[in-house]
Amino acid sequence: MEKYLHDFNEIAKAYVNAIENADLREGARYALFPGGKRLRPLLMLATLADLGADYRLGLYPAFGLEMIHTYSLIHDDLPPMDDDDHRRGKPSLHRAFGEALAILVGDALLTDAFLMFSKAPLSPERIVLLVELAARAAGSGGMVRGQVLDLKNGDRCLGELEEIILGKTAALFRLALVGAGIIAGREELDDLAELAHWFGLAFQIKDDIADFETENKITHPVLLGMEEARNKFRECREKSLRIAGRILGKNEVYHLLERIL
Amino acid sequence: MEKYLHDFNEIAKAYVNAIENADLREGARYALFPGGKRLRPLLMLATLADLGADYRLGLYPAFGLEMIHTYSLIHDDLPPMDDDDHRRGKPSLHRAFGEALAILVGDALLTDAFLMFSKAPLSPERIVLLVELAARAAGSGGMVRGQVLDLKNGDRCLGELEEIILGKTAALFRLALVGAGIIAGREELDDLAELAHWFGLAFQIKDDIADFETENKITHPVLLGMEEARNKFRECREKSLRIAGRILGKNEVYHLLERIL
Repeated sequence: MEKYLHDFNEIAKAYVNAIENADLREGARYALFPGGKRLRPLLMLATLADLGADYRLGLYPAFGLEMIHTYSLIHDDLPPMDDDDHRRGKPSLHRAFGEALAILVGDALLTDAFLMFSKAPLSPERIVLLVELAARAAGSGGMVRGQVLDLKNGDRCLGELEEIILGKTAALFRLALVGAGIIAGREELDDLAELAHWFGLAFQIKDDIADFETENKITHPVLLGMEEARNKFRECREKSLRIAGRILGKNEVYHLLERIL
Repeated sequence: MEKYLHDFNEIAKAYVNAIENADLREGARYALFPGGKRLRPLLMLATLADLGADYRLGLYPAFGLEMIHTYSLIHDDLPPMDDDDHRRGKPSLHRAFGEALAILVGDALLTDAFLMFSKAPLSPERIVLLVELAARAAGSGGMVRGQVLDLKNGDRCLGELEEIILGKTAALFRLALVGAGIIAGREELDDLAELAHWFGLAFQIKDDIADFETENKITHPVLLGMEEARNKFRECREKSLRIAGRILGKNEVYHLLERIL
């Protein structure tokens, strides 16, 4: 994973340094660095390796994916949305740079993500498949749909809660995993999508169990009680590991998922 | 132009009707319909016709272009940006649907625009060129850059003003014109980009001359005086028509520009 992170950060740094406008450049730098765990790009690159492909084919797409994730956090933190003053241990972007620039840095990262997909060292056929996958995962049928469903507070049933998680969380894991399948030229994209589904649920339920004492929103522990939420988490975790083991072997992705979940 | 508008609206309607989430669907419908003059997509389709290509090849890209234009208006109208309560004779999207949904409808339109590019009935090579062009025109080096430069009020010189116009206005005309060149498989993309440059300037200066009495911002008439602004407009208009006549003949685009400018 060290070499993935190193190469990824080189591409991210080169992107930021090449932004001509100083406000946009410093806003993008603040949002992208030091960043979080880089889980989504690492998952894409590890999946490529497990599929027997050169991970370097996926560096630009992995950065595009991280840009989409980062833009979604920036817009989600804005006052009309979650109104979060902090992100990753520092003031959120709009607190540090103002709301107008935060909206625009988000817009720029989302737009420029598609430039990264277009730059991947792949056949045009595969780039078009990636662009389509990314737009579907992130747009009105994917991540944004999850954000819109999440705007409505108040009561929600388990089905609604899981729709939100599948949009807000699992959709970008689908871009990571199915994207790696496309880059590697593989056919078993449905299996990779299924892995993203269970992993996304497990990831979010684990998070919501950990935040149960501090968060004030409807989550699996709230709806099911802690015991049942833990059972549901374990079930999603086991499904994730079983599918990963079956389609990718007990290799990098398997161990990454084991460590995260 | 009637048939372009008809076919364009069919694609736009089908897109909106297929959005599963009702809030996103009605927000997108409100933003896209009845819409404005559809100038950018019409320019793309007319350019295709003048280049001897089937305009129907460009219907999805033309809609993607209009989606990008529409998202930029939605985000630009938000309170932290221009704080506009009205757009095209009705309440702006955030006044009608709330700020959170307005941010998300904008994000969805921008993201889904790239899905429209990927759906164009073109070779993968040309689709990748279109995606790259669109991301450059709309992103941190194009339209968003213009928006960021425009955030800074206060004094600005003519050079700064024209940088803003080239980003906020000319960049999407470049996507219309150069995009048509890519779709038609033509080589003279630099000429089409030059046409977008002069047309974008002429279009904005004309607008600023018309709004001189009502607007309270630095524009060509403010910086140059009305007489010189009119001269500058005429110069940009003539350059636009001359280039259009030279590369496209006195055909649809020429007459469209004559009518608009």
